[in-house]
Amino acid sequence: MTRSETDVAVAGKGTYRFPQPIGVHASATVVGKMEAEGPFGSAFDRVMPDDLFGERTWEQAERKCLLSAAELALQKAGLKAADVDLCLAGDLLDQLTTSNFAARNLQVPFLGVFAACATSGATLALGAIFLATGLAEWVLVATASHHLTAERQYRYPVELGNQRKPTQHWTATGGAAFVLGRAEAGLPRLTAVTIGRVVDLGQRDVNDMGSAMAPAAADTIRRHLQHMREQVEDYDVILTGDLGGFGSELLVELLRQDGVEIEGRQQDCGLMLYDRTRQDVHAGGSGTVCSALILAAPIYQRLADRRLRRVLFVPTGSLHSVTTYQQGETIPTIAHAVVLEAGDLP
Amino acid sequence: MTRSETDVAVAGKGTYRFPQPIGVHASATVVGKMEAEGPFGSAFDRVMPDDLFGERTWEQAERKCLLSAAELALQKAGLKAADVDLCLAGDLLDQLTTSNFAARNLQVPFLGVFAACATSGATLALGAIFLATGLAEWVLVATASHHLTAERQYRYPVELGNQRKPTQHWTATGGAAFVLGRAEAGLPRLTAVTIGRVVDLGQRDVNDMGSAMAPAAADTIRRHLQHMREQVEDYDVILTGDLGGFGSELLVELLRQDGVEIEGRQQDCGLMLYDRTRQDVHAGGSGTVCSALILAAPIYQRLADRRLRRVLFVPTGSLHSVTTYQQGETIPTIAHAVVLEAGDLP
Repeated sequence: MTRSETDVAVAGKGTYRFPQPIGVHASATVVGKMEAEGPFGSAFDRVMPDDLFGERTWEQAERKCLLSAAELALQKAGLKAADVDLCLAGDLLDQLTTSNFAARNLQVPFLGVFAACATSGATLALGAIFLATGLAEWVLVATASHHLTAERQYRYPVELGNQRKPTQHWTATGGAAFVLGRAEAGLPRLTAVTIGRVVDLGQRDVNDMGSAMAPAAADTIRRHLQHMREQVEDYDVILTGDLGGFGSELLVELLRQDGVEIEGRQQDCGLMLYDRTRQDVHAGGSGTVCSALILAAPIYQRLADRRLRRVLFVPTGSLHSVTTYQQGETIPTIAHAVVLEAGDLP
Repeated sequence: MTRSETDVAVAGKGTYRFPQPIGVHASATVVGKMEAEGPFGSAFDRVMPDDLFGERTWEQAERKCLLSAAELALQKAGLKAADVDLCLAGDLLDQLTTSNFAARNLQVPFLGVFAACATSGATLALGAIFLATGLAEWVLVATASHHLTAERQYRYPVELGNQRKPTQHWTATGGAAFVLGRAEAGLPRLTAVTIGRVVDLGQRDVNDMGSAMAPAAADTIRRHLQHMREQVEDYDVILTGDLGGFGSELLVELLRQDGVEIEGRQQDCGLMLYDRTRQDVHAGGSGTVCSALILAAPIYQRLADRRLRRVLFVPTGSLHSVTTYQQGETIPTIAHAVVLEAGDLP
């Protein structure tokens, strides 16, 4: 039995700094055809040949996306599943079945976390805490989503061919995984996190989730900068998740009212995953994997290359269900923040 | 900014001991009429006047159960929501809407965890870790379930009056909450946890979840005792969650095959919440709140009175969804373990 050692500074309520940073030893991605045809298509590790990915149902294909990304990330880190101390995963499906069913294959201690499209933020934050406090040496973080499982669960059977509204998002298809361990020279690192609060400004249009989620992103960014005593300029990029065109504008405006100017420095994963001029995704991408894919592939690569030095990753999640929508409820939302930095030169 | 201090011993993969134990400062419960008429009815704090609890929908009533229990627990601990550093909650509804919607009212950092009926184990474990590592001073843990929301989500509209199978469980109605903080003399305390793995032995009958979950309970109990180098006799009670009549028998048998004898020392929350001789609940109670209610009321009281000295709480969860069931999938399950002890004499 070993006694763990902690190295965490509490910067404010829900904000934790890791003076001995966490190393992001590997990231891995699997994507669908549309994601492969987007602006960062060449950065992803594996492309599904079709929506079923050799499986019998789209739900099984989604599960395979998560497992394939997890296996590939472990392989890149030179690990086996048995080396992992904890797996943290989440997805959009009812009862987190993608993550729970995938976790059968891993046979390691497992916690399922639901924060809708902010799940990668919540799981990366928790994983970093287990590592920084000495409770784990290796943590696997994974997520997946699938356009066709999300459409039929949240909206309409896709066979109906319903028209989409301009404010609607396109749920991304794919899986993304990260292996967290001790920091090593040259490795991108995770140095701080802020756990979000649930925010609901009364939006009830499930076809405009970007606008619903913008206030949660504003709340978390504001709290994070205050707790850390930092400025927007301390980050190369503030990388929000899935606000899309309408939500990003609203976020900039909300923070501007508080004297925080992020225009020019903020980028949104939902606007990066697809090329809206030639891909018909309306307001942008979404889905638990959308922001995770952007973080795991192009951003991870740029941190590894030191083209980016410091990134504030703020994925956002819309916490409604079909039932709450049908009952006329408003949409609670959440955003979690994770700071990623380029490692010291090896 | 304060640097946190840890006091956790890693006893094995996923098993953490807290040499400076965590104090369970308060627990609070809200129950429906049937739960109030059960053997421990008088131990619960508040009884709902009816299934709607003054709300417009059953889903809103479930949310009110969670919030009422949370508010009452905070009040008992002499705290306000703003004093809490982190809230951890989970429930059975799609997209954890009970917990997420309730969290709007608390306005503190929030993480939603899904482990079906093992959720109280997962959230108590995570909360204890935040406290033991100095990342939080006060953590609020809460859950709720409602018979009528679960029936219509997982099974049939209750208006149909479908006949129930003898192996079926009765989803409990109510809310339960715990306030975790530093240990104090006389307070029940949380001294160790084991995070579960996902186990699936191929059961696919969603009307017999007790049998499906027994192997997960066996796996977690086995791992916990091995990691802690303990015997069954080190506990006054091994308190499983929601295995019911059939699942409890199977658990005893599974562990017996490994030379671990728990018969006579194991009790099951699903068999304790109702009196099956006069309440028509078939195999026993279930629902995220079932085991949480038993822990929060009679067990907490007996630990406070020192009638019980040491309890191994092992709630179990069945991780299927309606979709996976309809697609013919088997049922993955999980169990998390939490050790609770009577406090030192004040």
